[in-house]
Amino acid sequence: MFDSGVGGLTVLAALRARLPAETFLYLGDTARLPYGTKTAATVERYALQAVASLVARGVKAVVVACNTASAAALPVLAARHDLPLIGVVEPGAEAAARASRSGRIAVLATEGTVRGGAYQRAIAARRPDARVTAVAAGLFVALAEEGWVEGPIAESIAARYLAPLFARDKAPDTLVLGCTHFPPLLGAIRAVVGEELQIVDSAATTAQALEALLAPLGLQGRLDAGSGGTRFLVTDGIDRFLRTGPAFLGSAIEPAQVERVDLQEASA
Amino acid sequence: MFDSGVGGLTVLAALRARLPAETFLYLGDTARLPYGTKTAATVERYALQAVASLVARGVKAVVVACNTASAAALPVLAARHDLPLIGVVEPGAEAAARASRSGRIAVLATEGTVRGGAYQRAIAARRPDARVTAVAAGLFVALAEEGWVEGPIAESIAARYLAPLFARDKAPDTLVLGCTHFPPLLGAIRAVVGEELQIVDSAATTAQALEALLAPLGLQGRLDAGSGGTRFLVTDGIDRFLRTGPAFLGSAIEPAQVERVDLQEASA
Repeated sequence: MFDSGVGGLTVLAALRARLPAETFLYLGDTARLPYGTKTAATVERYALQAVASLVARGVKAVVVACNTASAAALPVLAARHDLPLIGVVEPGAEAAARASRSGRIAVLATEGTVRGGAYQRAIAARRPDARVTAVAAGLFVALAEEGWVEGPIAESIAARYLAPLFARDKAPDTLVLGCTHFPPLLGAIRAVVGEELQIVDSAATTAQALEALLAPLGLQGRLDAGSGGTRFLVTDGIDRFLRTGPAFLGSAIEPAQVERVDLQEASA
Repeated sequence: MFDSGVGGLTVLAALRARLPAETFLYLGDTARLPYGTKTAATVERYALQAVASLVARGVKAVVVACNTASAAALPVLAARHDLPLIGVVEPGAEAAARASRSGRIAVLATEGTVRGGAYQRAIAARRPDARVTAVAAGLFVALAEEGWVEGPIAESIAARYLAPLFARDKAPDTLVLGCTHFPPLLGAIRAVVGEELQIVDSAATTAQALEALLAPLGLQGRLDAGSGGTRFLVTDGIDRFLRTGPAFLGSAIEPAQVERVDLQEASA
């Protein structure tokens, strides 16, 4: 798995829950995060380096656990590498298409993901009747990283991004959290949009999609004494990852599981 | 000049005002910003690449217009390059030491600058009587980048960072804005700390320090027909720099002034 930093850990949690026999290698490009405000060309370059580094370490499949990188780089990654490779945008779009009754779907994502239009296209491919509104919520990433995920500040920011969208007559019935940093902000978002709205993210559907990809290829892991386990690679300091990561993963990370790597060198 | 992104443009504005005969080359490492949440080792590596790239373009002096990079990398940059080189931490400390009567000084900066303790040391060197309290205000960078610099959200965030510091008996009489992203948030900060507090930043004192450095070396520019002018180099897309930069610079930036560069290649 590869992510710009710690957000993808929300996806890792879902993968570990559904696929307990697999062993995970998680790469967080913490020296260059965030990706959400950067151009598609730059994100594509970073993603190519990250995936090359994972492939060089012998992984059997790659999950791009970052919406911005999935939106910007999945086609070029798939063209470059001959192994099962999935992103989180298609699974998120699938979840939204299933959940919505009215076909009015809102996507909350980073500036880069919104600008690229990947969610809009992926939802339209499944629900040609859908009307998709995408909102860039740049401050949510910083808010989640700072750990200020609830209370009046988080709710005011959520209201500023979302209230205009839900004030109209034909409000969406489904909201996609189109950035892996956003699930910890669910409470603050609910405080603005209410309890009726369907809120979906990519984590659970990505786990289903990975399972569906591995099984026909005979690539599933087997539950035995050596099964499971996770190692983490980060491009910046280990201490900050140990401090900010557990809130996204929902469980502890041990220092011995984490190693610092340099992507420039790894891919050069 | 070199900065992680657009924040250093607040320093450029002060340099252009005080030194109108100089020609400026501003490098913003927008593909890897922000620096404030990254380790000193990573910021040092980025700063070495950036300054090497400026030196290769024939500059006569370098201003590290980013507090985090000044705090993390100035000694190693000075050891590597034989040209006048200044950061913004020493000038900011100088401004605070001059402004404070009580010697109680607060520094508002990024996580990296606070952790490294450079402001605390630089102020203590000038005012051994000073009592310095440093506060990391990570969300301010995202807030300034998003352009949400005034109103209730900016004020609530300023209050959360600053109110505990100013609620005590012995509140500081001086506040240093120890990150070049923070000057646009001055109004929101004033709403929390009141009008009495001395608020200083590095911009004006850095311009004085640069002037004082160039003059004895005979390196000042001369006001003539070819004087002045600014070019910009950015490591990520030009469009976003054109959109977010002018608010920090306080004046327009023309597309023809901006060029995209790759620091890896430039320094390899």
